[in-house]
Amino acid sequence: MPLIVQKYGGSSMGTLDRIQHVADKVISAKQQGHDVVVVVSAMYGETDRLIQLANALTPYPEPREYDVLISTGEQVSMALLSMALNMKQAPARSFTGAQIGILTDGVHTKARILDIKTDVITRELEQGRIVIIAGFQGVNAQGDITTLGRGGSDTTAVAIAAALNAHECQIYTDVAGVYTTDPHLISEARLLPQISFEEMLEMASLGAKVLQMRSVELASKHNMPIRVLSTFSEGAGTLVTFEDKIMHKRMVSGIAFSREEAIISLSGAPRQVGMEGRIISQVSRANIEIDMIAQHTTVQNTVDFTFTVQRREHAKALKIIEDLAKEMGAGAVKTNAKVAKLSLVGIGMRSHSGVASTMFTTLGDAGIPIQMITTSEIKISVIVDEAHLEKGVRAVHQAFELDKHPQTTEQTYIE
Amino acid sequence: MPLIVQKYGGSSMGTLDRIQHVADKVISAKQQGHDVVVVVSAMYGETDRLIQLANALTPYPEPREYDVLISTGEQVSMALLSMALNMKQAPARSFTGAQIGILTDGVHTKARILDIKTDVITRELEQGRIVIIAGFQGVNAQGDITTLGRGGSDTTAVAIAAALNAHECQIYTDVAGVYTTDPHLISEARLLPQISFEEMLEMASLGAKVLQMRSVELASKHNMPIRVLSTFSEGAGTLVTFEDKIMHKRMVSGIAFSREEAIISLSGAPRQVGMEGRIISQVSRANIEIDMIAQHTTVQNTVDFTFTVQRREHAKALKIIEDLAKEMGAGAVKTNAKVAKLSLVGIGMRSHSGVASTMFTTLGDAGIPIQMITTSEIKISVIVDEAHLEKGVRAVHQAFELDKHPQTTEQTYIE
Repeated sequence: MPLIVQKYGGSSMGTLDRIQHVADKVISAKQQGHDVVVVVSAMYGETDRLIQLANALTPYPEPREYDVLISTGEQVSMALLSMALNMKQAPARSFTGAQIGILTDGVHTKARILDIKTDVITRELEQGRIVIIAGFQGVNAQGDITTLGRGGSDTTAVAIAAALNAHECQIYTDVAGVYTTDPHLISEARLLPQISFEEMLEMASLGAKVLQMRSVELASKHNMPIRVLSTFSEGAGTLVTFEDKIMHKRMVSGIAFSREEAIISLSGAPRQVGMEGRIISQVSRANIEIDMIAQHTTVQNTVDFTFTVQRREHAKALKIIEDLAKEMGAGAVKTNAKVAKLSLVGIGMRSHSGVASTMFTTLGDAGIPIQMITTSEIKISVIVDEAHLEKGVRAVHQAFELDKHPQTTEQTYIE
Repeated sequence: MPLIVQKYGGSSMGTLDRIQHVADKVISAKQQGHDVVVVVSAMYGETDRLIQLANALTPYPEPREYDVLISTGEQVSMALLSMALNMKQAPARSFTGAQIGILTDGVHTKARILDIKTDVITRELEQGRIVIIAGFQGVNAQGDITTLGRGGSDTTAVAIAAALNAHECQIYTDVAGVYTTDPHLISEARLLPQISFEEMLEMASLGAKVLQMRSVELASKHNMPIRVLSTFSEGAGTLVTFEDKIMHKRMVSGIAFSREEAIISLSGAPRQVGMEGRIISQVSRANIEIDMIAQHTTVQNTVDFTFTVQRREHAKALKIIEDLAKEMGAGAVKTNAKVAKLSLVGIGMRSHSGVASTMFTTLGDAGIPIQMITTSEIKISVIVDEAHLEKGVRAVHQAFELDKHPQTTEQTYIE
């Protein structure tokens, strides 16, 4: 029987009614002839409740004990789901990470999975049972409970699917799948039936927060297709899979964006070997994460260096750069704390040089100045005033016809 | 270093402030030069919260999953106590029943401990750490989580103390120890510095609910002294130990009592072999628990049979007896649903026949009719009108001078 792994997140497990609903979905998959392994998160709000208990007790909870504490959230929800299934005459058993043998390293609160034992799962499936597993947790070599960090249940699900060589790993969330852009912003946004792992990685890290990135990387590494779909509505969702399995290729798959960005430019610094490293390391040492970086050398042989940070770190980063500019004898520091990033993502752009040109022309025609550009193989990102973001996304979405269904023939964009 | 096992119940662990207080008490024991192993219950109210979740989901939760669910309560509190200790610079580590290796049978929700592994505990103690263990839970041979039933944390503590050959097992509660009678009723009630296992068993089953009875039996079996004391006040509490270790023996140790009793008598039934079994089995089959039983045969060769039940089962029991009386051609059924039981407990009464006589005379002098009497080796129980209970307890308490400190010389009552 084809095996599927299903993962239900905190909002899917948020109330007892929702847990009953999840049980019905699991039973339906079983009745379709699948062996079913289910990975669950803690009930919505429960992990936060436990964290608050720890933080009310001590500002620096001992990490080993912190993991002992918060891992109970998943244990509660797995037991409740198993009870609901058994009540509905669907034999099920729940297991903690330790009981399954999800072996991790010893880095408490953000452990990484080293190995997953399959004998318990296989034994239970052979008995015809549904197997329910606590997400987000494992056990280190000493037998201590570990957790994988926020969103770790996605990683658990993919790792188990890979270990069992499952047919598919289904991640149930509160959205119907992956869209061409945020449907809350652009109502014409369309659900993507398929997307490649690479595109998903570029989309998600840019703000389309549907899947935990580690889980996408892991799925890609193990060639395990992930299907993102909604607990609360019907539909096939979005299949995240390898590029060569994508049926209808398009040049561009979607537009990701993020607000809360800030941009800082250092201009007219006399060119000097290693200066870029010096700038970055000063900022990093202050624990500020740099996102985009652009650099160019002027005809006067000075260097312009531009980068973006999260808006809440803007003031701190600016202070560092202003001090550095003085040391370096740079001309000027320019900054804007109210910008947003808009990124066009698509495997097709690898072979279609026209994409960048269409994007920049579209933004220009809409009267939107571009403050910074970076590109990668399958992504073009621009920084614009935050006030221009929605207009920009809408214009680009339309220019690439993302609101329309892809051609069923592949003649237009075939590589 | 002498090892002590301390157990803190739900009310001791009820809030984060109380957990901090428990941490201070544990550290104080450690500073006195002890190795310390701590067994904890779930925070007050947490187990009930989890049970309500299960019951809201299904009227008959699957027992295996029920144990998975409710065992999280102790896991939360052990992690919090360990965090509090580490914060106070007292190295500590917490362990679930499964992590320690508390092996039980497979009877979910009321498992019995088969074996306790000591290697993890010993390793941690040798590292100078305080070891914190989840009470109330274990693991069966298949690796499934089991629970010991309500109050099981006392049993965990005693079993661990026995396995480690501890110096003493300290049970911290919200009372200062075991009293000569209920201090809420009789203000002259005195804290008993020592009491024998046997007396404790007779006291507790009669209503002085301080310790879970299984844990007292277990302690008696393994010759492990238990000290009952309060988390919230200083004092040495009550040491429950073997009779031959009791320093100042007294004829009578205390007076236990219970309200909510009902008495039913069947009189003038023609004598018949096996009739007592017939009566009892009819009542038991209706799931009614019988407490005291007294029987005597009259000179007319009829039988009077009297017994007591919990008051809430009185109507049901009475109906059964009335029907039986008709079948048997018995003379009369007499009943009183508003009676109470008063029990005098003491090892010393074994060799002092005067105890019963003093008790009955005292009650008679106080104008209290006795409706039923049963006796065992170290206990005499009488049934009286509930309205007479307080007066009776007070009179007997005074007659045996329970309000006075025992003689420091043993000349009076020595056996």
